[in-house]
Amino acid sequence: MGMIGGGKDAFIGAIHRIAANMDGLIELVCGALSIHKETAIESGRILFLPEDRTYTSYEEMITAESKLPADKRMDFVTIVTPNFAHFAPAMMALDHGFNVVIEKPITFTLDEAKQLREKLEETGLMLLLTHTYSGYPMVKEAKQIVKGGSLGKVRKIYVEYIQGWLSKLSEREGNAQAAWRTDPSKSGKSGCMGDIGTHAAHLAEYISGLKITQLNASLNVVVEGRMLDDDGAILLRFEDKATGVLTASQVAAGEENALKIRVYGENGSLEWAQQEPNTLTLKWIDKPAQTIRAGGNYGDRESTYAVHNTRTPGGHPEGYLEAFGNLYRNFALSLQAKLNGEQPKAEWLDFPGIEDGIRGMAFIENVVASNNSNEKWTDYIV
Amino acid sequence: MGMIGGGKDAFIGAIHRIAANMDGLIELVCGALSIHKETAIESGRILFLPEDRTYTSYEEMITAESKLPADKRMDFVTIVTPNFAHFAPAMMALDHGFNVVIEKPITFTLDEAKQLREKLEETGLMLLLTHTYSGYPMVKEAKQIVKGGSLGKVRKIYVEYIQGWLSKLSEREGNAQAAWRTDPSKSGKSGCMGDIGTHAAHLAEYISGLKITQLNASLNVVVEGRMLDDDGAILLRFEDKATGVLTASQVAAGEENALKIRVYGENGSLEWAQQEPNTLTLKWIDKPAQTIRAGGNYGDRESTYAVHNTRTPGGHPEGYLEAFGNLYRNFALSLQAKLNGEQPKAEWLDFPGIEDGIRGMAFIENVVASNNSNEKWTDYIV
Amino acid sequence: MGMIGGGKDAFIGAIHRIAANMDGLIELVCGALSIHKETAIESGRILFLPEDRTYTSYEEMITAESKLPADKRMDFVTIVTPNFAHFAPAMMALDHGFNVVIEKPITFTLDEAKQLREKLEETGLMLLLTHTYSGYPMVKEAKQIVKGGSLGKVRKIYVEYIQGWLSKLSEREGNAQAAWRTDPSKSGKSGCMGDIGTHAAHLAEYISGLKITQLNASLNVVVEGRMLDDDGAILLRFEDKATGVLTASQVAAGEENALKIRVYGENGSLEWAQQEPNTLTLKWIDKPAQTIRAGGNYGDRESTYAVHNTRTPGGHPEGYLEAFGNLYRNFALSLQAKLNGEQPKAEWLDFPGIEDGIRGMAFIENVVASNNSNEKWTDYIV
Amino acid sequence: MGMIGGGKDAFIGAIHRIAANMDGLIELVCGALSIHKETAIESGRILFLPEDRTYTSYEEMITAESKLPADKRMDFVTIVTPNFAHFAPAMMALDHGFNVVIEKPITFTLDEAKQLREKLEETGLMLLLTHTYSGYPMVKEAKQIVKGGSLGKVRKIYVEYIQGWLSKLSEREGNAQAAWRTDPSKSGKSGCMGDIGTHAAHLAEYISGLKITQLNASLNVVVEGRMLDDDGAILLRFEDKATGVLTASQVAAGEENALKIRVYGENGSLEWAQQEPNTLTLKWIDKPAQTIRAGGNYGDRESTYAVHNTRTPGGHPEGYLEAFGNLYRNFALSLQAKLNGEQPKAEWLDFPGIEDGIRGMAFIENVVASNNSNEKWTDYIV
Repeated sequence: MGMIGGGKDAFIGAIHRIAANMDGLIELVCGALSIHKETAIESGRILFLPEDRTYTSYEEMITAESKLPADKRMDFVTIVTPNFAHFAPAMMALDHGFNVVIEKPITFTLDEAKQLREKLEETGLMLLLTHTYSGYPMVKEAKQIVKGGSLGKVRKIYVEYIQGWLSKLSEREGNAQAAWRTDPSKSGKSGCMGDIGTHAAHLAEYISGLKITQLNASLNVVVEGRMLDDDGAILLRFEDKATGVLTASQVAAGEENALKIRVYGENGSLEWAQQEPNTLTLKWIDKPAQTIRAGGNYGDRESTYAVHNTRTPGGHPEGYLEAFGNLYRNFALSLQAKLNGEQPKAEWLDFPGIEDGIRGMAFIENVVASNNSNEKWTDYIV
Repeated sequence: MGMIGGGKDAFIGAIHRIAANMDGLIELVCGALSIHKETAIESGRILFLPEDRTYTSYEEMITAESKLPADKRMDFVTIVTPNFAHFAPAMMALDHGFNVVIEKPITFTLDEAKQLREKLEETGLMLLLTHTYSGYPMVKEAKQIVKGGSLGKVRKIYVEYIQGWLSKLSEREGNAQAAWRTDPSKSGKSGCMGDIGTHAAHLAEYISGLKITQLNASLNVVVEGRMLDDDGAILLRFEDKATGVLTASQVAAGEENALKIRVYGENGSLEWAQQEPNTLTLKWIDKPAQTIRAGGNYGDRESTYAVHNTRTPGGHPEGYLEAFGNLYRNFALSLQAKLNGEQPKAEWLDFPGIEDGIRGMAFIENVVASNNSNEKWTDYIV
Repeated sequence: MGMIGGGKDAFIGAIHRIAANMDGLIELVCGALSIHKETAIESGRILFLPEDRTYTSYEEMITAESKLPADKRMDFVTIVTPNFAHFAPAMMALDHGFNVVIEKPITFTLDEAKQLREKLEETGLMLLLTHTYSGYPMVKEAKQIVKGGSLGKVRKIYVEYIQGWLSKLSEREGNAQAAWRTDPSKSGKSGCMGDIGTHAAHLAEYISGLKITQLNASLNVVVEGRMLDDDGAILLRFEDKATGVLTASQVAAGEENALKIRVYGENGSLEWAQQEPNTLTLKWIDKPAQTIRAGGNYGDRESTYAVHNTRTPGGHPEGYLEAFGNLYRNFALSLQAKLNGEQPKAEWLDFPGIEDGIRGMAFIENVVASNNSNEKWTDYIV
Repeated sequence: MGMIGGGKDAFIGAIHRIAANMDGLIELVCGALSIHKETAIESGRILFLPEDRTYTSYEEMITAESKLPADKRMDFVTIVTPNFAHFAPAMMALDHGFNVVIEKPITFTLDEAKQLREKLEETGLMLLLTHTYSGYPMVKEAKQIVKGGSLGKVRKIYVEYIQGWLSKLSEREGNAQAAWRTDPSKSGKSGCMGDIGTHAAHLAEYISGLKITQLNASLNVVVEGRMLDDDGAILLRFEDKATGVLTASQVAAGEENALKIRVYGENGSLEWAQQEPNTLTLKWIDKPAQTIRAGGNYGDRESTYAVHNTRTPGGHPEGYLEAFGNLYRNFALSLQAKLNGEQPKAEWLDFPGIEDGIRGMAFIENVVASNNSNEKWTDYIV
C-alpha cells in the first residue's frame, strides 16, 4: 500500500493505516503524505517509511513506483486527501496499473465519478470506497436478514446520522477538519449531506437492497456564517413502494456520531446503531424481540457474512476500526485472490466500490437539486 | 365525575377511570357508558354505579344530573366516545354548567373545536384534553429545562411516534379499536396523523415552547385496503428558525408505543422516550451527558413541576397510568381551588386544554392539506 | 378497607391507598391513621373519611367496626405501621373476623409470625403480605418460565437490591423514614437485610421455586454511628444444588432502588430489573436473546399470569404502583370469590401470604445468625 | 516481536498479533508458533515470517535470535502458550536479554511468579502481563476518578465476570480451548477463578487502588464431570475497611463475556461494563448521573490517561482489540523510551507487570485455600 495524503495530524489517514495494518495482510510501503514537502518527509520518517519511498507528490510516487519491479512496488494506492483532490491521483494510479482505495465521497463531482468508472472498466483494476459503516458485521447480518425474507417486504426505512461537532462556527476557530469540510471549494456542493448524509443513504440502500427513486429534501445552514448546509432532512421514496426518512445533522449539540437505521417489513423490523454496533435488534409483530450479537454462534445465522467479518468471540466488543479493517481485509483478500488467478469468495467481494461511489455523488446532486426546488418531490437521477 | 362512553370492553374508558381513581380525589358517580342500553346498564353494574345514575344516553345523564342539588351532582363530565361523538355531549355539558374532560382529538373538525372555545369563554367552565404524554414528570421537567435556557436557543426538534399494531388489515379482522380508528366517518380526515401524530406535535410544541409555522407532509396508506393514512412523515418549521422532523407510523412492525422526542439547542440537547419515561437525558457539547430521573431530588431541579407530578421516591417506576392520573389530578386540584374561590398553583394549571385542542385539530387539517399539495411547504393555518 | 397507620406524611400508607384505589375494587372506609390523635383526625379529614369512622386507635377501630352490620363494616384491615407494631393489630383484627393486609416484614420476630399462622388457620381468614415486587407482570412471567422448564434445571441465582439513600447518617438529620428503619427497637434485628434483603430473598425463591437451605452472610455497618447493618452480602445454597449470591446495600451512593435478579439454568437464563420492569430478558446458549415485554401478546406466552396482571397494551409502561395494585387486586378478587362462595382462579391466588411472611422473618434470623458465626455455612432454619 | 505459541487455530495468539500490529509500532519478526513442527512451519508461512526465523521450539528461537546483531534481533518475546508453559520460556528469554510479554495468568504457581520477579530485578528487563481489561480508556478514567477523590472514600466494590461458554461439558466435545482450561495439569489449581476471576480481581484492585486483605470464597463445579471449578463467588475485604463481592462463572448460560465493576464511595459511584466499554457512568447522591464517553473532550477530564488510550473521536466505538492494543502500545512506547535512554511518560508506564502477575497467582492460591476452609474469612497472603 502507498498512501496519498494522510500526513501527521491528518485524522482519516491514521485511521486508514490502523485499519490496513490490523490483520497483517497489508503493509504500508510508500507514501506521498502531504503536499508540504517537509510534512511529507517528517510523516514518512514517523511511519518508518524508507527515505527513498517517501515521496513529496503523488505524481512522483506513482511514476517512481511504477518503475519498480512488479514484486517490489506497491499493490495499491490509498487516497485520503480532501474531496477535491481524489480524482486526479485516482486516474493517474489506474493509468499506471495500480488498484485504488479512496476515502468517500469518491470524487468532487458526479461526472468525475463516472469517468472513474470508465477507467476502471478499461483497466480491469479494483477500487475500494471506504464507506466504513457497511463493514460492521451486524450491518452485513442486517443485509442478509432482509434478503432472507423473514421480515417480509420492506415498507419503511428510517436512517439518521446525527453529530454535534459543528454546533459552533469551529471552522473559524482553527479546527482544520471543520475548515475544509465546510468550504465548498474543497468539500463540494453540500456540507453535512455530502459528509455524512451520503453514509446514511448508502447504509439504507445497502441493507434494504432498495434504491432511492425520489426525494424531498430540505437543507439548513444553522450556524450563522457557515458556507454549506450543516443540517437537513429528506423524505425518501424507494423502489417497490417503500418510503423513508433520512435525517442528518452536524449541529445536533451533544451527539457524537449517532448513525442509526431501522428497517420495517410486513412481519417485523430491524434496528442497528453505530455507537453500540455489536447488537442488532429484531422486533416482530407476534413474538418476542430478538437480540443478535456479533460473535454469537447461533447455528441458524442467516449467513456467514457476519462471522467472516468478526475477529473475536461473543462479548469482546469490536468497533469502528475493525469495521474499517473489514473493508481493507475484504479488499486485500479479493485482490490477492485475483492476483493468484482465483475466484474471490462472495463475502470477500462484499465491499463498496465504484457503483456506490457514483450513487453517493448522485445523492449529493439530487439532494441539492431537491433542496433548491419548490416542488415537493424530485426524481433521483444518476 | 360522570362518564360518557367507556362501557365494558372499551379501552380508553377504563384507563380514564384508573387515572381518575388513582389519587382518591375523584369519584365516578354516574355514567352513560354505552349507546347500547344493555351494555350501558351492565357496565354501570360492574362499576358499582347506583342504578338511578346509570343512564342510557348522554342527554339523559346531563339533564338528570343538572336537576340534582349542587352538592350531589357530578362536578364534571368525561367524554371517551369515538372522535365524531365528542362535540355534541361537550357542548350540552357546558350548556348545563358542567366542566368537561375530553379524550383527544378534541372534536371531529377544527370548526367544532373553535365553537367549543367560544362556549368555554362564554360559560367560564374548565376543560381538560387528555394529551396524556404531557402528564409525565420528565416531560414537564423537559419543558422547564428548555424554558430555563441552559440548552440555548432551540434549533432542532425530532419527534417520532411509531407503532406496529396496524401492520395487518386488523380492522377487517374484528379489531374494534382498529375499525373505528381507520374509518373516516368516525375518526376524521386522518388516521395515523390524527391518532398519534397529534400527540407528537403536541409534545414538540409543549416542550419546546415553539409553534409550528410551516410543514411539508407526506402521508401513506401502507396496508392495502385501508381507508386512511397509516403512516407518514413531516418536515417542520417552527417559530424562531427552528426546524424539525415528525415521524408517525402505525405499521412499524414490531414497535409498541414508541413516542420519542429530542430537542437540540445551541449548547446541548434533551431526549425523552415514553417507553422508559422516568429518565430524561441531557447531552452537552462540552461536558458529560446527564441523566435526570423522576423521583430524584437534586436540590438544583429546574422546577417543582416534576416533583409535583411524581408520587414515589426515585427508582420506583411510574408510568402511563400515573401520567394520565397527573392530568386528572391537576385538573381536579385546579377545579377544587376554583370552586373554593382560590387561585390554583401554576403547576396545577399545567394541563392541556382548549387551545391545545384547537392546535391539534389545525394540525390534522394542515397535514392533510400539505399532503395533498405539490408545493413543498404549506403554511400552518389555525 | 380500614387502615391502621399511614397518616399524612407517612410514605407507605399513601402508596397502599393508591394501590388499593387503582382498580375501583376497594374503598377506604375507615382508619386509625396515627397514634397521635390530632394527626389521626386531620388525616381522616384529608382522605374524606366520615368523622365517625375516623378512629384514634386500632383497638377502637376494630371494636367499633366489628359492631357494624356485616354489609357496612370494613372487609379487611391494612396495617402500615412500623415493623414492631404489626403483630398486635393483626391478631386483634383476625380475632374479630377481619381479613388482614400487612406491609412487610410481617412481624417483629419469627415467633410472632408463627403465632399469626396459627391464628389464620384457626379463623380461616385471609392475609396479604405486600411483597410488592412479586406483583410485577414480568416477575410472574419469569416464575412461569422457570416452571415451564425451557431454561433447564436452575443452577445459579444472582439477586441484588441496592439503594443509596442511607449513604449519610440521615437518621440523625430529621429523616423520619431513616430514623425508625435504623432503630433496632422499631425495625428489628437487622436494618438493610430486614428492609430490603428480605425482598431480594423473596424474589429469588418466588421466581426460582427453590428454597434457600444454607447461607454464608456478612453484614456491615458502613456509616459510622448507625445502629443496624446498612449493607451486606450473602452466599446462598438452594435446594437442588443451585447456588446464589444475594447483595443488599443502602449505602450504595447514587443508586435509587436497584432490585435485580438473574436466574441461570442449563440452557439459558432470565434477567429482570425493577427500575425498567416491563422488560424480561431471556438469554440462550445457542440462539439469540429474547426480550419479553409486559403487554406484548405473543400467542405463545407461557401463561396468562402476566396478561392478567397488566392493564394496558404494550408500550404503555406500568410501574411500582401497578405492581402494588396487582397485590391488592388479586387479594380483593380472591376475597370476593371466597365471600361469594366461589373458587378463586389460580392467578388471583398468586399473592404473598403468611408462608412468605414466615420465611421472611426466618431469613432475618438466619442472616443475623450466620453473620455472628465464624463458620462459613449456616443451615437455614425456619 | 517474536512469538512463542499462538500457531494457526490458537485463539489468543491471533489476538496478540492484531493488538501488536495495530499502531504500526511493533513488527512480528520471528516465531516458535507451535510445539508441533509442521504446525509451527505452516503457521510461520501464513504469517509471512521468513523461513529462517520460523523456529520449531522456543529454545531454538531464543538461542538463535540472541546470536543476531542487536539491530536485527527481536526486541521482545511474547508468550501465548497454555499456563503451564509460561515460566520456562520467560526465564530463558530474560536470561538471554529479551524483554517479555506474557498472557495471564503469569505462571503456573505463585512461586514461579516470584522467581520471575527476581530475574526481572536482576536483569533490569521489562515485562508486560496482558490483563487486557485494564487497557480500556474508560477503565483508566475510572482509576483516575477514584484517585481524584470526587467519589469520596471507597466503601464498596462489586465486580462480576460472567460467561456461559462452559455450560455444557464442552471439553469432552472437542473444544480445545475448553479442554486445556479445565485440565488442572495445564491450567493450574483453579479453572474459572484462575481464568476469569483473576481478571475481575485485577480490575477491582486496579480501579480502586485498594488491595484485597481477606476473602471468603465458595467455588463450585457445576457441570458434572468437570475437573476444576467452573463457578464461584467471593466476599472480599479490602484495605481501608472497604468490602466487596466478586462473582465469576463460566456456566452462566446465555452470557458472553460480562465483566462489570461498580465502585461506591461516600458521595457517588462509578460503573463500567466491558461489553459496552466506551461508557463510564457516574452516579451521585445529590445530583444527576453523568455519562463519561471514550473520545469525549470535556475540558475537565480527570486525566489524560483516557485520551492517550483512545484513537478515534467520540462516537467511533473502540473495543477489546484496541484495549489490548493499548497494552502493547504503552509497553512499546515505554520500551522505546528506555532504549533511547529517555524517561517514559506516566501514562505509558500504566500497563500490568510482574507485581500484577504475583497478585494474580496469590489470588488463585488464596481463593482455593479459602474454598477449602470452613472458616468464614481467610487472610490474603502473598
